[in-house]
Amino acid sequence: MHVNPAADAAQSVEIRIGAARYEAVVGSNLLTTIGERAAVLIRGPRCAIIVDNNTANLFSASVQRSLQTAGFEPIIITIPSGENSKSLEQAGAVCAQMAAAELDRTSFVVALGGGVVGDLAGFAAAIYHRGIPHVQVPTTLLAQVDSSIGGKTAVNTPAGKNLLGAVHQPVLVIADIETLQTLPPRELKQGFAEIVKHAVIADASLLEVAQASSLRPGDNASWKLALPNLVARNVEIKAAIVERDEHDRGGERAILNFGHTVGHAIERAAGYGRFLHGEAISLGMVAACEVSVRRAGLREEEREQVVATLEAFHLPTRLPADFPRTAIMPALAADKKFVNGQVRFVVSSRLGSARVADDVTMQDIAAAIDTL
Amino acid sequence: MHVNPAADAAQSVEIRIGAARYEAVVGSNLLTTIGERAAVLIRGPRCAIIVDNNTANLFSASVQRSLQTAGFEPIIITIPSGENSKSLEQAGAVCAQMAAAELDRTSFVVALGGGVVGDLAGFAAAIYHRGIPHVQVPTTLLAQVDSSIGGKTAVNTPAGKNLLGAVHQPVLVIADIETLQTLPPRELKQGFAEIVKHAVIADASLLEVAQASSLRPGDNASWKLALPNLVARNVEIKAAIVERDEHDRGGERAILNFGHTVGHAIERAAGYGRFLHGEAISLGMVAACEVSVRRAGLREEEREQVVATLEAFHLPTRLPADFPRTAIMPALAADKKFVNGQVRFVVSSRLGSARVADDVTMQDIAAAIDTL
Repeated sequence: MHVNPAADAAQSVEIRIGAARYEAVVGSNLLTTIGERAAVLIRGPRCAIIVDNNTANLFSASVQRSLQTAGFEPIIITIPSGENSKSLEQAGAVCAQMAAAELDRTSFVVALGGGVVGDLAGFAAAIYHRGIPHVQVPTTLLAQVDSSIGGKTAVNTPAGKNLLGAVHQPVLVIADIETLQTLPPRELKQGFAEIVKHAVIADASLLEVAQASSLRPGDNASWKLALPNLVARNVEIKAAIVERDEHDRGGERAILNFGHTVGHAIERAAGYGRFLHGEAISLGMVAACEVSVRRAGLREEEREQVVATLEAFHLPTRLPADFPRTAIMPALAADKKFVNGQVRFVVSSRLGSARVADDVTMQDIAAAIDTL
Repeated sequence: MHVNPAADAAQSVEIRIGAARYEAVVGSNLLTTIGERAAVLIRGPRCAIIVDNNTANLFSASVQRSLQTAGFEPIIITIPSGENSKSLEQAGAVCAQMAAAELDRTSFVVALGGGVVGDLAGFAAAIYHRGIPHVQVPTTLLAQVDSSIGGKTAVNTPAGKNLLGAVHQPVLVIADIETLQTLPPRELKQGFAEIVKHAVIADASLLEVAQASSLRPGDNASWKLALPNLVARNVEIKAAIVERDEHDRGGERAILNFGHTVGHAIERAAGYGRFLHGEAISLGMVAACEVSVRRAGLREEEREQVVATLEAFHLPTRLPADFPRTAIMPALAADKKFVNGQVRFVVSSRLGSARVADDVTMQDIAAAIDTL
């Protein structure tokens, strides 16, 4: 077992969203603390650890042991890895396993994995007995800085990604930096796309921190010293935005979609699987910066700084030559962010801030995509 | 068209639950007013009227016309009638039809029918785009006085009735008394079981009002004059209880389960379909009164008054001779109201009030069932 006393000091971010109050704990070697942390929050005793077949072997044993030591009776439910598991059928199958193990209204769910597991397990918790508590234990950088925070849960349908879901806040988030060590480099890097997004919309100083991180990929010790602060700061940023607009209705939460309108369209046009989510968002942010330069007064050097940061992580900033560019705009028009057919496009007038613009036209977006 | 100016005066009950504020309108000839009432509440323009193939022919045309006149673009989604439609698969199919008709986050759902339609359509609204508004238009007495009020939505699974669902408050409830005229007598009568329940747990004077109603089944004019007040009062009672405990966690909402612990067990033991829900609840209330006499000080003449009121509506108060009595207790133990295997049984010490007792044993319940 890896020993790193310095990094073992956990940071806690307090999250207040609507009526919910919960803690996101960020640090190293936290998986073994889940039982004691859950014991003060949830009655139990039954609970389900939901994992995919990638993370199952890596982490589920220590989480299970921690829960058992604290007096809980965990079962492990394993789903196939990959986006296809985010379906209503899979949610139903998970709930059926929970019912078979006699989980009741006092039971809870532990979502142990990346975004797919977090979204699916969170949704299962949201609908089981009309809502039971759940703990998010994100094990990818993308999930730690973004998808595990804010309570959005969802499944896909043939008609759309995240078309069905619920807003269901967890009672606890545990972001264990150690789990990131097992990530493939490409998976780790895509997490930085959302970090760059947070920098653009809320904290420009984070761009430099992120870029500095990229310079020492082989330097494990300093990398691991930097990551807890970086993750904790991103949790703070996301939580602060969600706090002001839990159900994504007032417009405030919409700024989290910076880069996502074009990014999602690129994902759809490419066919899911060609790009990782963070990679598509990287391209979408470059386009959003271009729109921001043209329509919102973002300075050209600010756009270049964003592009340079993305490139430092080898995230894509240009479309591959063989990409079906003409498919992007039709995919964009089908996006659910288009309310009554009207474009709600997120722009930044100055790094560290963003807003929803209502004067961005389809032509502006098409022109920005042409520059990719 | 039936003209009844006196009954056309609609009553409004204001409901405040959690952050939600909405109105339940009770009266006659209200279906044609849905469009104008929805127009002040919801943006739209797209919406889905969800009906089953029983109510479709009766009511959907006038609701559709009303919505169109108010500028909305309604589609009609028809589901098969019956409890089997309350499934996750059917909810997914309904959402797929909504997506195919391009309903978006500003769209809404109209649940037009009895409890099955209300629960299923409400659940579809709860998960579609993580929650869009819905209007409940209950067309059975049971749905008007009970299931349409309080925001509980659900689907069944093989492992349990209402095992999956959401608490999702409607933005408007329209209870049109005229729709009850088309109900088969047995369906109408089962609605009185929940009215008797409200009387027992919250307003003893309602017992006499209900019993008086039963005396004039052929007297249409006075029946129709009495019903709006009766329905409105029951909406008030249910809403007041739910207001104090929206998510059914504090115990207050649990008193609505008076008669339901045994009632659900009888439904399960009989196989769904033998008894209507209200009929099973009638039997369950007789058992709950018996437990209340033995353990909570309910007077014998109070128990008899409840039984007499149920009998006035020809609701069952004794089990049929061929009923599989030995199946009831095992079915009861599987009920989700048993938290950690502990019985939380609702008793009444005095008509017009109820509480959750923690000293009722399985033996007490078994003895009460023996008297049925």
